[in-house]
Amino acid sequence: MAIITLTTDFGEKDHFVGAIKGSIFSELEQINIVDISHSISPFNISEAAYIIQNAYSSFPKGTIHLIGIDSELSPENKHIAIKLDDHYFICANNGIMSMICNDIAAEKVVEINIHDKVETNFPVLDIFVKVACHIARGGTLDVIGKVINTIKPIKNLIPFVNDEHNQIIGSVIYIDNYGNVITNIRRKFFESIQKTRAYEISARSHKFKTIYQKYSDIIDFDMEESKRNVEGKGLVVFNSSGYLEIAIYKSNCSTVGSASTLMGLKTMDTVTINFLNQ
Amino acid sequence: MAIITLTTDFGEKDHFVGAIKGSIFSELEQINIVDISHSISPFNISEAAYIIQNAYSSFPKGTIHLIGIDSELSPENKHIAIKLDDHYFICANNGIMSMICNDIAAEKVVEINIHDKVETNFPVLDIFVKVACHIARGGTLDVIGKVINTIKPIKNLIPFVNDEHNQIIGSVIYIDNYGNVITNIRRKFFESIQKTRAYEISARSHKFKTIYQKYSDIIDFDMEESKRNVEGKGLVVFNSSGYLEIAIYKSNCSTVGSASTLMGLKTMDTVTINFLNQ
Amino acid sequence: MAIITLTTDFGEKDHFVGAIKGSIFSELEQINIVDISHSISPFNISEAAYIIQNAYSSFPKGTIHLIGIDSELSPENKHIAIKLDDHYFICANNGIMSMICNDIAAEKVVEINIHDKVETNFPVLDIFVKVACHIARGGTLDVIGKVINTIKPIKNLIPFVNDEHNQIIGSVIYIDNYGNVITNIRRKFFESIQKTRAYEISARSHKFKTIYQKYSDIIDFDMEESKRNVEGKGLVVFNSSGYLEIAIYKSNCSTVGSASTLMGLKTMDTVTINFLNQ
Repeated sequence: MAIITLTTDFGEKDHFVGAIKGSIFSELEQINIVDISHSISPFNISEAAYIIQNAYSSFPKGTIHLIGIDSELSPENKHIAIKLDDHYFICANNGIMSMICNDIAAEKVVEINIHDKVETNFPVLDIFVKVACHIARGGTLDVIGKVINTIKPIKNLIPFVNDEHNQIIGSVIYIDNYGNVITNIRRKFFESIQKTRAYEISARSHKFKTIYQKYSDIIDFDMEESKRNVEGKGLVVFNSSGYLEIAIYKSNCSTVGSASTLMGLKTMDTVTINFLNQ
Repeated sequence: MAIITLTTDFGEKDHFVGAIKGSIFSELEQINIVDISHSISPFNISEAAYIIQNAYSSFPKGTIHLIGIDSELSPENKHIAIKLDDHYFICANNGIMSMICNDIAAEKVVEINIHDKVETNFPVLDIFVKVACHIARGGTLDVIGKVINTIKPIKNLIPFVNDEHNQIIGSVIYIDNYGNVITNIRRKFFESIQKTRAYEISARSHKFKTIYQKYSDIIDFDMEESKRNVEGKGLVVFNSSGYLEIAIYKSNCSTVGSASTLMGLKTMDTVTINFLNQ
Repeated sequence: MAIITLTTDFGEKDHFVGAIKGSIFSELEQINIVDISHSISPFNISEAAYIIQNAYSSFPKGTIHLIGIDSELSPENKHIAIKLDDHYFICANNGIMSMICNDIAAEKVVEINIHDKVETNFPVLDIFVKVACHIARGGTLDVIGKVINTIKPIKNLIPFVNDEHNQIIGSVIYIDNYGNVITNIRRKFFESIQKTRAYEISARSHKFKTIYQKYSDIIDFDMEESKRNVEGKGLVVFNSSGYLEIAIYKSNCSTVGSASTLMGLKTMDTVTINFLNQ
């Protein structure tokens, strides 16, 4: 059974997501529809790019990913469908796919051109669903669009490295459900610059000299539990998606606080790594 | 495979929705359960009416819509099942269905009368699920209730028009995920009063003289992007459901603000349209 | 078709839940995945215990419940799989299951020991999904873990009763979507202490002398609707899960207020019942 995933900024309350699912079931009786997220901040391309990049590859080959963020058709905002890594993606050409496409070359990109057949002011419902169901039925991209060669990029994807190669300047791209602060600095990139040097990570006035492998590495399990005093303590890890993340051990935005709330870190803020000369 | 949709005010956190899905799967192994919304404001009949009206018709004929809002059985709050437009609806007789029934006549309405067979203080789980599964198995409404002829109405469904037919007084019925402000003034109704006259729309101190067809119609694409200055600008559209909506271009309640937050508009507030004599 | 339910503190926004579903579909094409809740407060074991206890039994026998709360593997936080009441549960051994296991004896508990075969810092995705799919395929617990005899308990599960048996001191274990305040005092427990005595329930400065069977029992339906004045009034019920609950009639945290907001009651607060001598 084919799978269609949904990633949107439609929220959990409105009828939009329900209408889209109903519309898919009206076209295809046998289909698995899976929500990835509907809580992307409205019109936030970077958040959507981060979410879809880290969710898509867990799905089986052939999965169709419908992404409804900032998708109103205009002369400057066209609709595209992409085949990449044996997955399909349907979205607006607004930068959402540039994060994935930077890692893995797209097999095919088409600009969707079925709009003359459909009157709509809800394109995700009327255009994206039609394209998704076409692909789910085994249809090809060539039938619903014309091939294009480049897609729109997003900014701040790649951290800056200075000429001496002893400093990385990255930025915060996502704050997760625990208030953990995720940067655009990825493990492989970091290691390629670091070599074997010691380093200091700075975010506002906070400094860190260790990157942990997992959150509980901050605990000394030989110490008695009552004396450890680690809850609420800041730390840096490479998260499960391979991004450098500033976290608080067992954080909770609405009670004990989180890396974002306690350190005052927001999306777009700068995180700097200085490497020490050997 | 039959489809049962769920629309409730149970929220995203509690066990209620999970329990309902488990209960449906305990009765029917082959069923598609689709969430429409669980984030209706508690006991908010008008919100639920708007959501279900704009979601249901995207689903295939025969879909069963279970609506759990203010559904505790009492002498004044009976349970009903409705067949309408080849869809089925199960809910309390508290006004939720009057919005849809105003547009399309119900084929059949029954007051559910299986309560003597079921002890419960969670009727959505124990009564609504039983009725939904009965219908999904091909059962008829007559078996689970007795036919009634009228359902409870809700107020403020229809905007007011003055005797001279040069003024519509509508009200805000819903605030969506983007903070857009949706009124009870529908396109067809508006056009039947407007004829070809110019008009001015007023909401608090804000005035509009144009109703756009889509949000990006506010942009002059011939102008250089940096000079356009449209983000955060107010506009009026007929939304994808055909309702007159006051919006902010690319709004976000928690960052740049929205029509609701920036113009101070809330549910039940008045929106007036004055038509200019020709 | 097998059913896997998901209960986590991953929230509605991040990619974690989507990745888990994708990963399950990559292992099993025919599977029903059902969300119970992803909005458990971060690391809140008691909340998760309450939710899973009240949701699981509505599902068919054989259902597999994957619980992702505080599940990072450490010397003090092992992974377990439990067979109980013909359901399967996969979680960390952090107390989550002690509420259910207190009511119903587990048929089998194993400590999962497949970690040496899997490198991961996202154990719910990499370990729990593997175990869930193993069980869904008909695999046994012995293959993926070694039998253990005790699981970690949580505190405050059982209310305190004084020696004279004329006082119960309970505590608040959950605040639901309506702001209703749920205590750890269950109907059967209450009745076993009460016998036929009158009682007074105290929570902060609020006192109640009646426990209703349902919320609308507070209404006198013989009185004219406009004179009733019940909205916003406090009451005590045994909720649909059998727990003593302090509620406000038709409450809404963000408008009229709720039991939690109006009476200032939070999780861990004390609720006392004094029985009057006959």
